[in-house]
Amino acid sequence: MIIGYRAYLELISEFLVDKEVISSEMMKEIDRCRKALDLAAAGRDVVLVCGGDPGIYAMAGLVFELARQRGHRGKIEIVPGLAAINGCAARLGAPLMHDFCAISLSDLLTPMEVIEKRLIAAAEADFVTAIYNPKSKRRVAQIGRAQDIFLRYRSPETPVGIVTAASRAGEKVVIARLDNMASQEITMQSLVIIGNSQTRTWDGLMVTPRGYQNKYSFDTGTE
Amino acid sequence: MIIGYRAYLELISEFLVDKEVISSEMMKEIDRCRKALDLAAAGRDVVLVCGGDPGIYAMAGLVFELARQRGHRGKIEIVPGLAAINGCAARLGAPLMHDFCAISLSDLLTPMEVIEKRLIAAAEADFVTAIYNPKSKRRVAQIGRAQDIFLRYRSPETPVGIVTAASRAGEKVVIARLDNMASQEITMQSLVIIGNSQTRTWDGLMVTPRGYQNKYSFDTGTE
Repeated sequence: MIIGYRAYLELISEFLVDKEVISSEMMKEIDRCRKALDLAAAGRDVVLVCGGDPGIYAMAGLVFELARQRGHRGKIEIVPGLAAINGCAARLGAPLMHDFCAISLSDLLTPMEVIEKRLIAAAEADFVTAIYNPKSKRRVAQIGRAQDIFLRYRSPETPVGIVTAASRAGEKVVIARLDNMASQEITMQSLVIIGNSQTRTWDGLMVTPRGYQNKYSFDTGTE
Repeated sequence: MIIGYRAYLELISEFLVDKEVISSEMMKEIDRCRKALDLAAAGRDVVLVCGGDPGIYAMAGLVFELARQRGHRGKIEIVPGLAAINGCAARLGAPLMHDFCAISLSDLLTPMEVIEKRLIAAAEADFVTAIYNPKSKRRVAQIGRAQDIFLRYRSPETPVGIVTAASRAGEKVVIARLDNMASQEITMQSLVIIGNSQTRTWDGLMVTPRGYQNKYSFDTGTE
């Protein structure tokens, strides 16, 4: 039994031949997880399909939280996958060669103060920073706020990579700068990666050196 | 033409049948990348194989840095893969459901002051924190230092996951606590994941809720 959001199941249709499938359009994530747990409790083998890596900002946690409410988890295996951070980094060059962090700008379940505190910490401690959920229809100001915070600690020329719809139809890869980041085309499908103080651009790529000792060649300014 | 460290090529031997392979034992990473670039410059199609995700603390950056030294990159494609952070999170439950960062404790190319600054920032801003290169034969004290720093900001009971040799022979998964983290068996093959203030353990798993508003069930203390 395979359960998933219709758009994701379409991407793996070749594996679904002769399988029982529950393709959900309107059902919320929580309902989908509950359905999977119900079927598993009834003795079925169930695969719950999601986009990206289920273990990174995705459905793995929800499944365990709901299983815990029932007081029984049965046998649940998390199969890791490529998260947005893996796929988008590959498209941009090599931005994640040094310490990095991931911050979601969605304030749906997290107070904005916590998000801002993390942006400040990431900027100040020179982490390469991947911004998940940079913008939505309702939430447009946060990416500008992130830009302002980073500009306090990092050069305006700091490379910023923006990948939209990675590996899908209409994929778009842009390398911008910190001082024009917020004015780029950014959607709900975008991941934004802000370089650290050592990140450089070269030939349409964004590369972060592996250290601070200029052992290799990236010892000159941004090109 | 396929180039890689012998141990990694052995893991994918089924794909190497009838292929030209350069399996290196002693060659350093830099030599291996140079060899790949030399062959590509001579017109060959070259695949450079590494462990994990080439884009996360791995060889993608080195390839671009060396290509840049030559002033020409040709056509280089980075194929993303599962990094330690993806694979180890899956083994531990769902620790990466909220903002996280990755910090390497290796001070080979990074000053220890920078590493400590990042540990403090990560601990203070409540990031789930993945520690890469937690220990080596030479470098044994840093993980204790990380423990001391985190204890300043987080509860001693904070769950800490330690995965050693993920997906390989002898894989070991341990869920410890922040106050006994440094005394666990940790090797060069380990990844350590420190939970945030909301991370809980349940039934041998480590789960971080998706937010701070206790929308789901993980609203009670550590079990």
